Amino acid sequence: MQMLKADFENKLNTLSGEVNAALDRLFREKCDTALFDSMRYSLSAGGKRIRPVLLLAFAEAFGLEREKAMDFALSLELIHTYSLIHDDLPCMDDDGLRRGRPSNHVVYGYAGALLAGDALLNAAFELMTSCRTVPAENALAAAGYISSTSGRLGMILGQSLDLDDAAKTVEERTELSLLKTGAIIRGACVGGALLAGVRDQEMLSAAETYAKCLGLAFQMRDDILDVTSTAEELGKPIGSDAEEDKTTFVSLLGIEKTEEEINRLTQTAINAVAGIDRDGFLSALVTALAGRKS
Amino acid sequence: MQMLKADFENKLNTLSGEVNAALDRLFREKCDTALFDSMRYSLSAGGKRIRPVLLLAFAEAFGLEREKAMDFALSLELIHTYSLIHDDLPCMDDDGLRRGRPSNHVVYGYAGALLAGDALLNAAFELMTSCRTVPAENALAAAGYISSTSGRLGMILGQSLDLDDAAKTVEERTELSLLKTGAIIRGACVGGALLAGVRDQEMLSAAETYAKCLGLAFQMRDDILDVTSTAEELGKPIGSDAEEDKTTFVSLLGIEKTEEEINRLTQTAINAVAGIDRDGFLSALVTALAGRKS
Repeated sequence: MQMLKADFENKLNTLSGEVNAALDRLFREKCDTALFDSMRYSLSAGGKRIRPVLLLAFAEAFGLEREKAMDFALSLELIHTYSLIHDDLPCMDDDGLRRGRPSNHVVYGYAGALLAGDALLNAAFELMTSCRTVPAENALAAAGYISSTSGRLGMILGQSLDLDDAAKTVEERTELSLLKTGAIIRGACVGGALLAGVRDQEMLSAAETYAKCLGLAFQMRDDILDVTSTAEELGKPIGSDAEEDKTTFVSLLGIEKTEEEINRLTQTAINAVAGIDRDGFLSALVTALAGRKS
Repeated sequence: MQMLKADFENKLNTLSGEVNAALDRLFREKCDTALFDSMRYSLSAGGKRIRPVLLLAFAEAFGLEREKAMDFALSLELIHTYSLIHDDLPCMDDDGLRRGRPSNHVVYGYAGALLAGDALLNAAFELMTSCRTVPAENALAAAGYISSTSGRLGMILGQSLDLDDAAKTVEERTELSLLKTGAIIRGACVGGALLAGVRDQEMLSAAETYAKCLGLAFQMRDDILDVTSTAEELGKPIGSDAEEDKTTFVSLLGIEKTEEEINRLTQTAINAVAGIDRDGFLSALVTALAGRKS
């Protein structure tokens, strides 16, 4: 079924609001250390909380109450945030600005940002392995899957390949995006299903297809926004890809063809979850993210 | 009981040999990427494999076969290795030499070393959460405990505090050592017990006391070796602590008093595990590590 725009926005705000409230409660112990400050600084920088929202939505679609999935949802935001901190470091992308604020290392120094990133990745696994709201088998299955998407065969491999700017064709750019951006999104969708106890391969494949299409469409939209958006809308300098002569979907396909691909991927994602997307939220979400303006 | 020196060395070599063989089998997928090379480079640099050996020994002491505990044992070496790679980075200790070989970033570059460290930490959790040789409850309990010792309240907090060289008294130096060096050793000992299904608080406390004493004695020996050893024995420049005017147990207590403390801690560790150390290996191990020459 199709969800009304107002209902979609309402549910999205509810879910991201729950995530933000839970994030606010993290790392309140010994809050006087620079390490904790640095972790909270980057976590509180905002962002759309897409990954935790996806995990909550998939867990719920398969019958698990959202509050029982919250620790895993937060874990994905911690992993995402650590990857941004490390990506922004001088030895990586050397970005001084993130979401309109100074990057972590600009505020807390190189070593402070390095350790905050390490601690956030570690904390993600602390949350997942201390989760007692679901049977241990389900927690272990979800944590195992998520860790495989965030690691050397997933996101980190993507970061490593991206360093060499090795993607020169559409196929290579696709493969890279499925790793660097897509892997964690896959972790969120399939991880949410596993956490809810799903073991049926067809159901897990549906979540995976949705995630892959969303991840790719998301990256394609990113590439388009980098050339069409204003710096204010984007919260970071525009045209930075072109300036660095980086290969993007837009440089390879042009804007029009990229838009067509985004539409095709969005439809494939919607079809994949047709059997489980009872209230239409998953369909509305991929549509909104693929068509977003910032 | 007391173990004969030859029997101890025999068992130690057997355990570390099993660990090295299992480490050699890791990360053989897609072995042509720089990321995997970088991970294997630091893992194969040798070292005593103390942390995995401790986990295996504690798991075995509580009745779990060593091969069933191997994934968790390896995880500790991955965590230890990642922490060394990140510690050696220019923004941290800026060490160009590790175990007599160029540090990871000297060979693979700053970003390569950063990502190899990230990937090793992540891989540790991949191994732990994909372990199916023990009941899920035991895997989750051990992984949860280990992750708490390696994170923002354990090892990483220690690294963060050490950056400021904040430890100026024996008490502060003790607290710092229990975090930076001791936390993972605690993870190994208590983690091994939890993996074997131990939930008895007295047993877990025994493992914890042993680990804390070993961790402290180990650090004290490190501080002594830094002033008494030769560079060849140590595999790194000697006197580096004194050169950097760093506060150590030796600078605070002198060598003689530090030796006394090491003896006291060794005895406390031996007493703590009296009820579980059937073949005397744990007692011989803390004695050997606290008295080591390199």
